[in-house]
Amino acid sequence: MHIAITGAAGMVGRKFAESVARDPVLGTRTVERLTLWDVVQPQPPAGFAGRVDCLSTDLADPAQAQALVAQRPDLIVHLAAVVSGEAELDFDKGYRVNLDGTRHLFEAIRQLSADGYHPRVVFASSIAVYGAPLPYPIPDDYHQTPLTSYGTQKAIDELLLADYSRRGFFDGIGIRLPTLCVRPGKPNKAASGFFSSIVREPLIGQEAVLPVPEDVRHWHASPRSAVGFLRHAATLDLARVGPRRNLTMPGVSVTVGEQIEALRRVAGEKAVRLIRREPDPAITEIVRGWAPGFAATRARELGFVAESSFDEVIRAHIEDELGGRLP
Amino acid sequence: MHIAITGAAGMVGRKFAESVARDPVLGTRTVERLTLWDVVQPQPPAGFAGRVDCLSTDLADPAQAQALVAQRPDLIVHLAAVVSGEAELDFDKGYRVNLDGTRHLFEAIRQLSADGYHPRVVFASSIAVYGAPLPYPIPDDYHQTPLTSYGTQKAIDELLLADYSRRGFFDGIGIRLPTLCVRPGKPNKAASGFFSSIVREPLIGQEAVLPVPEDVRHWHASPRSAVGFLRHAATLDLARVGPRRNLTMPGVSVTVGEQIEALRRVAGEKAVRLIRREPDPAITEIVRGWAPGFAATRARELGFVAESSFDEVIRAHIEDELGGRLP
Repeated sequence: MHIAITGAAGMVGRKFAESVARDPVLGTRTVERLTLWDVVQPQPPAGFAGRVDCLSTDLADPAQAQALVAQRPDLIVHLAAVVSGEAELDFDKGYRVNLDGTRHLFEAIRQLSADGYHPRVVFASSIAVYGAPLPYPIPDDYHQTPLTSYGTQKAIDELLLADYSRRGFFDGIGIRLPTLCVRPGKPNKAASGFFSSIVREPLIGQEAVLPVPEDVRHWHASPRSAVGFLRHAATLDLARVGPRRNLTMPGVSVTVGEQIEALRRVAGEKAVRLIRREPDPAITEIVRGWAPGFAATRARELGFVAESSFDEVIRAHIEDELGGRLP
Repeated sequence: MHIAITGAAGMVGRKFAESVARDPVLGTRTVERLTLWDVVQPQPPAGFAGRVDCLSTDLADPAQAQALVAQRPDLIVHLAAVVSGEAELDFDKGYRVNLDGTRHLFEAIRQLSADGYHPRVVFASSIAVYGAPLPYPIPDDYHQTPLTSYGTQKAIDELLLADYSRRGFFDGIGIRLPTLCVRPGKPNKAASGFFSSIVREPLIGQEAVLPVPEDVRHWHASPRSAVGFLRHAATLDLARVGPRRNLTMPGVSVTVGEQIEALRRVAGEKAVRLIRREPDPAITEIVRGWAPGFAATRARELGFVAESSFDEVIRAHIEDELGGRLP
């Protein structure tokens, strides 16, 4: 089978492509071809035996969306997006990429659907479709009232995906990813950055800054789980899902204090001492509006699996990014 | 103040303009100018003392949206839409008018917002943003999972309205209208047509066809209430509404059997005998997926008022369309 990945140069796209290279069997089919798209040139995953095409592209250009779809991939994993902070700073760019880009992609598929083309589309949505005030846990049937332009764009994309699927233009499924933790790489300026940083840096003996109180509760899953969600969404029987095609993925709901306790259990007091409290009221206010956690009942019933504790989330990072042991 | 109405030739647009002509005081301001837009040329309301401009236009053309907004109306009542059945039959037209047309209007306002233009926008949404299976009553925080392209487009417009309002481009409020009953005029082919027909025709001594069983439950308000919702939305303090700008309007939840009992109370057995049962499995299946009724708690708390019984809905029709008495 042929898989096309948009946003393939991002962290999730890279990890998904690497996963396919390691294990190219998805359900009953074997992946023979990968098409990797992103605005920056993606890199081919190591060890993939099939054909790989890596292209620098802009889905916000309808002709480029058509060019991707003209290759008739069996599965399109649509990850391309302007991130939350950037979509908030640059209104036009956020709508152009996150809304128009997605719509161009869906439209390009619809144009070919009359010829019998009917791919699966796996769309990475986000828990940012929810906006405060939020209950805990948030039930599957809770309304979407995003408080960012990014969340608005993802919620709109979800609606389009469900309607295009209902009309028979493709077979779509939207998966709302939790905050991915522990994100590999360097500390960044994103408001959510500390959730990963307070684990990632101490594990390698470096200091991390905690800008919020320990009672802040949020919803996490590992990058490894995100790849698992994509693989499952690629093969799941969508007749079981029905017309409500957008699902909140499972995860682990923990307070920052519980994150720190998990770090203590996994890496000891030495690691915890590297977390420096530096309260930031602006970040605290932003993060207090985020989702504390979800029931995610439907997704679990449909076989999506995440970690069952934050200790597991930390261990997944140690295994996947630190060679399985602490330095 | 200057009010612009899109979709002004439709039933709700005409009734709203007539209401403004009769009572031009909205809150603390007096309406001195009306701009009526529709794809078909709207008619000026009788008796309006101020200036009226009636224009045949297409909002799906960005330049025309800009032309409307360039007049800087204080209030834009956005009613223009391709109806549900047509949006389902003509995919491109539905998206072009109901999504792109709305977005062009919002964008045109945003382009002027840098100059300090900041109108109120009252958007007519629909309970079609909800799709089966649905609980009864549907709570205010229930998710939007439309099962029509029309409902999808309205749900997307709601998200855009909330985001543009949050970003400060205009002050928007979306009101989800119940099925309007009793619709004046002739019987039509819409799946919902019988809800009005089984009251409207018998009241004037004509036969009406009932295609569904009497246990079908649905959510109604009179056209008079719809006008009241628009007037209230035009003046409501939106600081009280907060960022969740889309509200399900109040209404009356009744079964078809309860509609018929109300007709019996208001117009007697003679009227009821004019309802002819002619079961239609296709219409029954469509209508069974529709919303049975809502809590509408927020809207009621914010002062939106509908009828409190279906008897009142019938009486409003007799007063507004039949001169206050049965023929």
